Formats: sequence, structure tokens, C-alpha cells
Amino acid sequence: MHKKLKLGMVGGGRGAFIGGVHRIASRIDGEWELVAGALSSDPERAALSAADLGIEADRSYGSYAEMATAEAARADGIDAVAIVTPNHMHAGPAIAFLEAGINVICDKPLAHTLEDAQKIADAVAKSGKQFILTHNYTGYPLMRQAREMVQSGALGTLRLVAVEYIQDWLTEPADPDNKQAAWRTDPKRSGAGGCVGDIGTHAFNLASYVTGLEVDTMSADLTAFVAGRAVDDNVECRFRYKGGAKGTLWASQVAVGNENGLSLRIYGDKAGLEWHQENPNVMSFTPFGEPKQILTRGGAQKIGSAQALRVPPGHPEGYLEGFATIYKEAADLIRSGGASGHAPGIEDGLTGMRFIKACIDSSAQDGAWVTLQAS
Amino acid sequence: MHKKLKLGMVGGGRGAFIGGVHRIASRIDGEWELVAGALSSDPERAALSAADLGIEADRSYGSYAEMATAEAARADGIDAVAIVTPNHMHAGPAIAFLEAGINVICDKPLAHTLEDAQKIADAVAKSGKQFILTHNYTGYPLMRQAREMVQSGALGTLRLVAVEYIQDWLTEPADPDNKQAAWRTDPKRSGAGGCVGDIGTHAFNLASYVTGLEVDTMSADLTAFVAGRAVDDNVECRFRYKGGAKGTLWASQVAVGNENGLSLRIYGDKAGLEWHQENPNVMSFTPFGEPKQILTRGGAQKIGSAQALRVPPGHPEGYLEGFATIYKEAADLIRSGGASGHAPGIEDGLTGMRFIKACIDSSAQDGAWVTLQAS
Amino acid sequence: MHKKLKLGMVGGGRGAFIGGVHRIASRIDGEWELVAGALSSDPERAALSAADLGIEADRSYGSYAEMATAEAARADGIDAVAIVTPNHMHAGPAIAFLEAGINVICDKPLAHTLEDAQKIADAVAKSGKQFILTHNYTGYPLMRQAREMVQSGALGTLRLVAVEYIQDWLTEPADPDNKQAAWRTDPKRSGAGGCVGDIGTHAFNLASYVTGLEVDTMSADLTAFVAGRAVDDNVECRFRYKGGAKGTLWASQVAVGNENGLSLRIYGDKAGLEWHQENPNVMSFTPFGEPKQILTRGGAQKIGSAQALRVPPGHPEGYLEGFATIYKEAADLIRSGGASGHAPGIEDGLTGMRFIKACIDSSAQDGAWVTLQAS
Amino acid sequence: MHKKLKLGMVGGGRGAFIGGVHRIASRIDGEWELVAGALSSDPERAALSAADLGIEADRSYGSYAEMATAEAARADGIDAVAIVTPNHMHAGPAIAFLEAGINVICDKPLAHTLEDAQKIADAVAKSGKQFILTHNYTGYPLMRQAREMVQSGALGTLRLVAVEYIQDWLTEPADPDNKQAAWRTDPKRSGAGGCVGDIGTHAFNLASYVTGLEVDTMSADLTAFVAGRAVDDNVECRFRYKGGAKGTLWASQVAVGNENGLSLRIYGDKAGLEWHQENPNVMSFTPFGEPKQILTRGGAQKIGSAQALRVPPGHPEGYLEGFATIYKEAADLIRSGGASGHAPGIEDGLTGMRFIKACIDSSAQDGAWVTLQAS
Repeated sequence: MHKKLKLGMVGGGRGAFIGGVHRIASRIDGEWELVAGALSSDPERAALSAADLGIEADRSYGSYAEMATAEAARADGIDAVAIVTPNHMHAGPAIAFLEAGINVICDKPLAHTLEDAQKIADAVAKSGKQFILTHNYTGYPLMRQAREMVQSGALGTLRLVAVEYIQDWLTEPADPDNKQAAWRTDPKRSGAGGCVGDIGTHAFNLASYVTGLEVDTMSADLTAFVAGRAVDDNVECRFRYKGGAKGTLWASQVAVGNENGLSLRIYGDKAGLEWHQENPNVMSFTPFGEPKQILTRGGAQKIGSAQALRVPPGHPEGYLEGFATIYKEAADLIRSGGASGHAPGIEDGLTGMRFIKACIDSSAQDGAWVTLQAS
Repeated sequence: MHKKLKLGMVGGGRGAFIGGVHRIASRIDGEWELVAGALSSDPERAALSAADLGIEADRSYGSYAEMATAEAARADGIDAVAIVTPNHMHAGPAIAFLEAGINVICDKPLAHTLEDAQKIADAVAKSGKQFILTHNYTGYPLMRQAREMVQSGALGTLRLVAVEYIQDWLTEPADPDNKQAAWRTDPKRSGAGGCVGDIGTHAFNLASYVTGLEVDTMSADLTAFVAGRAVDDNVECRFRYKGGAKGTLWASQVAVGNENGLSLRIYGDKAGLEWHQENPNVMSFTPFGEPKQILTRGGAQKIGSAQALRVPPGHPEGYLEGFATIYKEAADLIRSGGASGHAPGIEDGLTGMRFIKACIDSSAQDGAWVTLQAS
Repeated sequence: MHKKLKLGMVGGGRGAFIGGVHRIASRIDGEWELVAGALSSDPERAALSAADLGIEADRSYGSYAEMATAEAARADGIDAVAIVTPNHMHAGPAIAFLEAGINVICDKPLAHTLEDAQKIADAVAKSGKQFILTHNYTGYPLMRQAREMVQSGALGTLRLVAVEYIQDWLTEPADPDNKQAAWRTDPKRSGAGGCVGDIGTHAFNLASYVTGLEVDTMSADLTAFVAGRAVDDNVECRFRYKGGAKGTLWASQVAVGNENGLSLRIYGDKAGLEWHQENPNVMSFTPFGEPKQILTRGGAQKIGSAQALRVPPGHPEGYLEGFATIYKEAADLIRSGGASGHAPGIEDGLTGMRFIKACIDSSAQDGAWVTLQAS
Repeated sequence: MHKKLKLGMVGGGRGAFIGGVHRIASRIDGEWELVAGALSSDPERAALSAADLGIEADRSYGSYAEMATAEAARADGIDAVAIVTPNHMHAGPAIAFLEAGINVICDKPLAHTLEDAQKIADAVAKSGKQFILTHNYTGYPLMRQAREMVQSGALGTLRLVAVEYIQDWLTEPADPDNKQAAWRTDPKRSGAGGCVGDIGTHAFNLASYVTGLEVDTMSADLTAFVAGRAVDDNVECRFRYKGGAKGTLWASQVAVGNENGLSLRIYGDKAGLEWHQENPNVMSFTPFGEPKQILTRGGAQKIGSAQALRVPPGHPEGYLEGFATIYKEAADLIRSGGASGHAPGIEDGLTGMRFIKACIDSSAQDGAWVTLQAS
């Protein structure tokens, strides 16, 4: 008899964006039910939001601390908590739930500062619990296939990686009434990185996930194009990877005409591939000297192991299904106590924080080559 | 306090395809929980499938008849049943649940024959319950927007409609071990129409939904290209619509290189638009004498009312989200007793069955012009 | 020592469209020089146009009849004449030059009526000269490759052909000041077919050229959507080919948002291919059960013989180069007296005229199935 | 009476690539006739090549020096010479013809070294003759329109420029039998820059042409990925433009799956645009907060002055027509003695050479920021 896992949520009350995404993602594969929450720091909003979501009143908490204590004490307490607050409020609840022995699913980037990130990592290590970071773009089936193709040698020795994540929604100064824009451009809440933390980390993580390459040194140039903006809205990076490959990363929130333009191109000495998130069910693959092939999610290609498909090729899956795959993996990890399954985790989170710091440090030194230091 | 509606399912046991789609679609917006089922005519498979899905053993039934009776008698009985069996097994359960006073969500086409379809329609009328037919492609946000654009006059007077639904999976004789292919090419189970019933009805429904046009007369040419196939695998239709517009429909299951190529093009005397299901988050719109515009789901366009968005533009939604919208609408209709909300229903189902019959009749007369008769 | 062939032109004076295209096409490969013309029925315009083009005054003629006589009498007379007048003025000059022993390159469709067309054909037969009809779309390198692929069996037995040629420039009533629109919508000059003659013949010819299929019977539905238009502006055809394949043709001049949307899709029992004229350097090819391949002009594909390339893959060739290939072939045919080379010719022209007549006849009989009769 | 200009050619004999392109480009608009040449340093090949092209034997010369002298002495001598030799053989003939009072059309990059380039510039200044550098990609109609759009303020204040020129043909070590590959990877003939000179200069020139931006400082990273290659095959640049905009340039000859992937993206504070050379008849333009528009060559857009069109929208023009536009402009400049017309010229050539030098210098200093120095 299949039993759903019980999920709690910190943040994600009325008016929030990413909380709703986590909830849909948790539902798609039928592995989770949402039963508890500290959905807002405003008690009234918290209660109303809980009622909207069918959370019983006695499991709608006024604070994450209270929630961690109470849920840990219940026989039917939550199996995991999803933390969907702004970046500066990740560390508090993450550590509290880990110390209470509860698994954590956390939105990215890991934290507000590298110091906070390290504290979370210490708490994970001490707790022995699962920690999943929702780098959801790695959940796209074709990104899984691309990773397998790289690992299998289908591209040969990698030479070049070009990852982009370009948007336009911050082309003009942020409207103070737009909650999403407001906290993302406020270094007190988002951390010292703006665009680099919000979407640069996604791009960096995706390229690392698919290629398996590790940065030797990197150079970055951060810009705030909008007058008065306290954080960067455009990021250019160059990477020199261990082993000789090179790469670039471009993240922008002022590239007019781009909604959510995450793309990845990888070139080896035997083949190249290209993928664009906005039409995620296709990927082009060209072995050198042969015609370009259009690979589709679950399609006819013989390269890469078959993915477990929710729907057949030609029935497009999207952002929410990719995100759901992370929740499915979280369930697998938690049910098996870490014995089976894999998902983006604490190490990805630390690397992402080091990437943000390296970008800021390099850019402050006019693009000097820096490493991703441990702290 | 938000309470989920309770869903039962007939069909959809292990190895089925569309049942799983219905289940995911029902979960996405958090409106439904699956609590009962008659998932297979094979009792062991039914029980195992129910356990897989977390259905309590006492609500896993051996037959739909038993289930209809038992659920109608429970205080906490199901609010609706989803019927996901092959076409020839729609009428039995649909009528049984309607007679038991239970709302029905039914996969398309409505039935195996027009006679069966009419019996279902009679049962709907008599029951006063909601009946939703999952013509899921109408659930794509851009198809909603296209319909509003047509209604608003943005295209002017419509002249031409071209709808296609081309696939290639039946290019070769059906593998008897492929359950999906086997029943769809067996007229005893699929009805007299093969391709025309399976996907032609989707194409016809979508074009009708978006344009609002009604067929005056039509001509059809059905072909079975694969030797020995008992039903059509390719359909060509011409439509003369009331009011002077004309249209064509092409459905095929032998068009090699097409996975699920549903597309819609509409031309009026003021503008044209074009949409392809495999990349459903974009639609092109060209006012005569102006540049083509690329409209995106939830994007910057000023035409068409805003859709309630699950995720922002650039975060692609897909097939499952469009399907989920039908389940959301079903919930709205059922909660309001039909007072608010709208979804594809019994009339769409009857029209679809008349369309199948008209295709077969016209084709048998070498493409003679026929009407969509009432019976 | 390579010597250019000498070209004359009938029609194509100032303000004309297709004459300029022929001139550029004749120049691209360096095989032709324009030395004589009867460029306009208006003597002043004829003289000015000739001067614009560097034609000596004594070879700018007042009529095609005068020109045929005079050029035939010169030792350095033209090798061929290009006829680029409206359709109703093809037969006169074509026959005059053929009778004078001069090769003819003629714009399509062949003539204004099938009777005129037959007279041209008789003159060709009697003259023993070369007659080239500029069905230029067959000149695209990928259409050459597609034809070879079909012939080689790469697609298997053909089942389905879908050819479209959709435009929008006649969406509104023709501006009387627009010469191109005016004669094309006047049956006295264009012939009884409007859209069907102007672009339908191109689509029909291209599909025939690439597939090699011959029509057994066909059914057509012609419409004039614009009020008061004397000829059709939209054409739908169904074809039953000899051997069992089927096809459709859609030509329209009122499909808003389409500039020059000629496309061809062909499906056999082994593979399918798809090509769009507006981006003519790519073609997709999908062997059943394998990934779609993107073939490029001169690209890496191993199927189809290498084309003589003017520029490498990735350096797009366009409409003018395809047209130039017809002029190159005309030169080859003329230099060899027909012994080597091939190009669209008198048979293609007659077939096109029969196609127009069949469309009009079938449409007048509500879409009855008709043959392409010999006269 | 229109008279063609007389063209001579240095280089471009049998087996050459770019010479043939220049010849076609010179013919398309009927402004030029090829009458003289020093087509090869091999006398026999020179004579055979001349005969192929219809050049009279007495105007097929054994050396460029002989040709410059002889043609300058003829009453009917050439109006201009096209220099299509490898880079290290540009300066000799360019200076010789300029000194002989003959206009020069020269392939890019301008020269083998910045020193040679400066000598050519001095000769141009002293001669008072026209000097045209065939940066042909600026000849695409949509690049003309893009430049006008930037100048008109349609994009607002520019912020970001991303230009790419990626190919894959040098993915493996150059075949010594491939003349094109051999000289381009030999620093004695191509100059110190490999990829940067061959295609990087095109990309740099195009971005400069369209945006009008001038580089303040730049940083570059050059790589030779193929073992043993003596010149770079991959180039990454960052630009800080005067006025605050930033940019990147990526040129590669080892990006597998790219034939000739030149693309340009420009983002201002009001709008963005994007163009890809391989499908050069479309360009996307997005005003902030509005739908993306697809602008086509000669299409419906109201922005940008109308281009003189050879063929209507939807009839694709390509690489050769863009190149022909440079030849048309050269004719205009030469006919008017420089009084009317404009084309890429000696300043573009010098800037390109400075760009190559800056790339090499910066890369040698690990990506240090450098200027485009005058010498």
C-alpha cells in the first residue's frame, strides 16, 4: 500500500511565487501531501494561507521554530519541510528542522552568505538527514539525457561550454509593490549577488550537472545597468575547467525580449549539443561530420537511457514536471534514508555560494582569475 | 478551509496510459484526491493497481456497477468518477454512475457508437449531474486566448481554418503486445473510426472551440495505408462552415517524423494566427500589414484576458497542465452544481461522434458533402 | 575560352517584377549576357528600359515580332529569348521565336488557356529548339536532393504528400495601381485561374518534381474570398496518385501572416521529410524510429549526390540562386542542343495547364473527382 | 545608356573559394564585367582560369605588378581590382594598384600585419582612389535596418551586445590538401590570428557597424584547442564600450554542429533585437513590455527605411546578395568618385587589424584589459 509522505512548508503564503511552484511539484507524482506550515511571518496571513491549502488549523504555526518543535514531537509529524522564503531566511529554518531531525527541501541559492551556507552544511552533516536543494532545471528529462551522453563519451573530450540565463523583467527599476522584484534587488535579503544569485547559480549548477566539469579558475564581470540598483543585473563569466575545457556564463535580467532564456551549449571533439529551456522537449545533437539530430524527450534516439516518462514524446512536459522530478527524488532519498536516489543537495548549494562569492570577488578586481575557494 | 473533492476511477490499472495522465492532471491544482477505483477487469490487477495508488482495499471494486452502487451509498462517497477505459466501455460506466447520482469525467471520444453516445446524453439530461469530456487540448492557455481573440474580432471575419493532428506511431502494423495500439486499431473496441476517432475528434473539437464556427457541410476521405488495418489511419476533411468560412482537417498516424503534431491555423480578413501543440507556450499572430507577433503564455500581449497563471511566462507549461485545467474546471462545475465554470461536455461529445460518422459516411461516398446529422 | 550566351527579353520593362528576377538569375553564373529586348509595348518605356540595361538602341525593338525576325537574321543574334509578360502574352512571342529558330525561356504558367498552351507545344515540337519553363522552385538544391532521396528509396513507398503555397498579399481587394495585383486578378490576362495559376501551379509542379508521382484523379475546391474578385484566391486539392499514394495541395493569397509560404511534406513507409521555402537551406528528414535529422544545403548528410555548390553550407543561398540554376540548366541544354542537361520544359507547362483546368472543372462540380486530361 | 564597370581580379584561380564569391557578387546587379586578371601565381593555372572566365588572353597577367602597369596604361583599363588572395598577399597588390591609380576592392582582413595594413592605408590616402573592404555581412538588408533602428533610438540607450561567429569546420587538424584550411591555420599566410582574423573580424565589424559603439577597453582569451595548431581556433572577448555599454564576442571554428553561425543580439533600455545569419531574412525585435515582433527583409515593419529590394519578402535573399550589395556600393562610390555611396573601407580594415592585435595582446596577458591602439 503506497503511503504519501507528509510535507510541511516555511514561507509560501498568499502572494508568494515559488511556494506555489513547490506545492504543485510536490503533488504531481502523488508522493507528498502538505499537512503543516509556517506560511507567513504575519499570523493572519499565515492562518488564511493555511486554510486555502487545506492545512488543519492546529498545524498552521506562527514560526518555524515552533513548527519544528511541534512536528518533531508528533507521531504523524512531517517527513520533510520545504523552505521557500527569501534567501536571508533559509539558514534559520534549515538548521532548526535539521536539529529537530526533519529532512529539508530548500529553495536556491542555499543562503544569504557563504557563512550561513556553511552553518547549514554543518547542520546537515551532524543531523544525518536528507537535504535537497531545488535546482529544478536539472530535472528536465533532456538534461538527464545530456548528462548521460557526456558521461558516455558521445561528445568526446569536452572543449567548450556556453550557458546563458537571460531575462528582461528587471529592465526598469523594480516596482516596490512587486514583492518578487523588491527582495531580489535588496542585498539585505538576496545577499550580495543579485542576478548572479537568483539565476546565475541556476545556470552554473546546470552546466556543472550536465558536463561534470570542475572550475579551475574563473573570471567575472558584474554590472548593475539600472541606475540606483544595489545589486548586479548582468553577469559575464569565463571558466577554465580542470582538464583544459573552457566555458562562458551569461546571466542577465535586462536583456529585453527574453522571458526565461536558460540555454546550454556543449562542444566536444566528437560532437556538440544545444538545448533551450523555453522549449525543453527538444535538444539538438550533432556528431562531427554528420547531420544535426533533433532529440526529443522520450523520443527515438538511441543514446541515453530511457527516462521514466509521465507522457509520451510529443506531449510536452514543462517547468513544473522538471521541478516535480526533484520532489520525486526527494521522496526516494527520504524513503530509503539516502540509500537510493540522488538529487541536488548540500554540496551543490555550497558550490553555488562559492560561485557567487568568486563572481563578486573577481569582478571587484576587474575580472581577475580566481578559484572557487572552500570558504 | 479548502477541502479536496473525492475522485474514483474506472480503468487505468497497471499498464494503461491515459489513466495515469488523468491522475496527474487531477492532482496538479490540489482539487482532487483519488479514493476509489475499479481499475481493471482483472481482479488481481485491480487490487494491485489500487494498492499502488494508495486506494484503501475496501474501495477497490471488482466492477464499475458495484462501485457505483457502493460509492453512492457512502456518506463520504466520491464526488466524481473518471472513466478512462477504451471507447467501447464508456457508455456502461457513464450511465451507471450518472444513474447513481455521481458526476462523470470521461475520456474522449464519447463512445463507441453514436447510439451509445446518445444514451449517455440521455442519462446526463435525466441525472442533472455534471458531465465533463476531457478534450484536454482546449485547456492550453494560448488556446483560451485564441478563442477570446476570435470572439473579440481581432481576426476579423474568419475565412480559413486549417487544423492538423499528425503522428507516426502507427506507421507499421500494430504490435499486438502494444495495448495502446491494439485497441485503437480494433473496430470492436475503438469504434468504426480509427485515427478519426482517436485524434481526429481532438482536432475537430479544438478548431470548433477556438473558432466558434459550425459546420454546414463537410467532405472526408479516409484511408488505411497499412495493409490489413481494419480502421483508417489517415483522414482528410474539407469543411464549409455556416457563414462562408472554409476549413480543412488532416489527421494521420502514419506521417513519419511527427510525434504529436497538433496544430491550428486561422485566417480572417484582418489577421491570422498559428499555434503548434508541441511547443504550446508560443503562438504567432499577424494583423494584416503588420509584423508577425510572437505571443507567449502569459506574455506581454495586450490582447485576450489574463489567464490565471501557475508559473510566469518563459517557464513552459505543457500537456499535463492543459489537462489539469480541465480537472480544475470540473471541480468548479461540481462545487457550484453547474452554476459557474465551463468545460468540454456532453454536447462536445455528441458533436464529435457525429463528426466521426460524417467522416465515415462521406468517405464511403467518395467524399460527398454531408452534414453533421443529429443521429 | 568561355563565351557567354546572348539573351533577349520580351516584357520586363521599368516597373515590372519578374523581368528583373530573370535578369539577375541569368547573370549569377556568368552564362548569359542580355543584348536585345522588346521590353514594353509602350515604345518610350521600351527604349528607356533598354538604356537602363545597357542594351544597344538598335536591339531595342518595338514588338516581339520585329525582334524575332531581326535577331534571327543577325549573325550575332540571340541564343534565347526570355518571355516575362503576363500569361495571356506568352503564346504569341513563344511561337514567334520558336518559328524563327530561337530557343525560349518562358515564365510560368505556360499560357492563358490550354489551347494556347497546346499551340506552344506544337511549335516547340516543330522547331526542335529548347523550351525552358522557369519553375524556379525546383532549382533549390535541397529540392534536388529530396528528389534523389525519393528516387533512391530513402523514404520507402510514398503514402502522403502535402504541398502548400500560402501568401497574404491579396487579402484585400487589389489596388488598381499595383500592376502585379491587377493583372493577376483579371481573368482576361491571367487566365481563368487566379491563385491556382499564379502559385498553385508552382506548388503542383514542385510536388510532382520531387515525388515523381502522377495524378490519377483529383478533386478541387476554389474560392474567391474577397468580394468582387473575378478569380479564385484560395485553392484546396486532393490527389489520388497512381500507385496508391494520396496528397493535398493548398494555395492561398489570403492567409494573413504568410509572405511566400511554399512548403512540401512527403511521407513514405520508411521515412518522412519536410521543407519550407522561406528558409530553404534546411530540410528535415526522419527515418521511421530514428531522430529527426536536419539536412542543410551542401551539409554533412550522406544521402543524395553532392550538388555543385556556389557557396559552402551555412552561407545561405536563396530564391535568386534557385532561379539561376534554371538559367544555368538552360545554358547547358542550349549549348548541347538538348543532348545534356535537364530543366522544366514544355511537358511541365502542359501538365500545369491541365492542372489549372482540372481544378476549375472539379470545383465547378462541387469537388468531383476528375483526371488531368490531355486537352 | 548604362555601361558596366570593368573589373580585374588578383587571385581566385581554379580551386579558390572566395574569388568565385566575388565574381558572382560582382555580376548580380549588372554593374561589373570581369575583363582582366592575375588569377594565380602559377602561370598555367592563371591562363586556364582566365579562359574559364572568358578573360581575353592578353589581359591574363603573370603577376599583379605587370597587371597594374598594363591596365593603367590602357584606355579601356579596369575601373577596379578585386584582391582575393590569402591575407599575406593583400598589401603588395593593393599598394601597386592604388599607386597605378586604380580603385581597390579587397577581401578581409585587411592584411597580414598591422604594419602592412598601415602601408595600405597610406597608399589609399595618397592615391585618392576608392578602397572597399568586403565585410559582406553588413550587406544583409536586415543589418542595414538594424543599424537604422539603433540610430533612430528604437532600442533606447544600448546596454549589451552579444555577437557570435561559430563554426565547426576546423574541429579536427586541417587536412593539408584542403587549401582553405591550410592557409588559414598557417600564421605565415593568415597572420598571427587564426579564427580571430578569419571570422572574429567579421563579427567585430558587424557589431560595430550595427551598433555604432566604439570600444573603450577589451579583454580577450584565445585558445588553440586542436593539438599542434599554430593559431587560435576559439576567441572570447569582453568589451567595455565608450558610453557604458558592454559586449561579448565569441568566435570559434571548433563548435561542432555550427556551419556558419554568425549571430547578433543587441539590448537597449527600450528594446532588444536578435538576428542569425543562417536564416538572414528574419530578425526579432521586442520593445520592452510588448510582444516579440518578427521583422522580415522588406516586410511589413514600419521601422527603418525601405531597402531597395531585389525580390519581395518571402523570397529569401542570401549570402551572395549581401555580398553583391557591397559590389553595388563599390560601383556607386567609384562612379561618383566617392561623392555618393558608402561601403566598408580602409578605416574598417585598420580597426579590424587593431582588434586582432588587441585580442592577441590581451590574451597573452591572461585577459588584461587593453585598448584598440592606433598602431
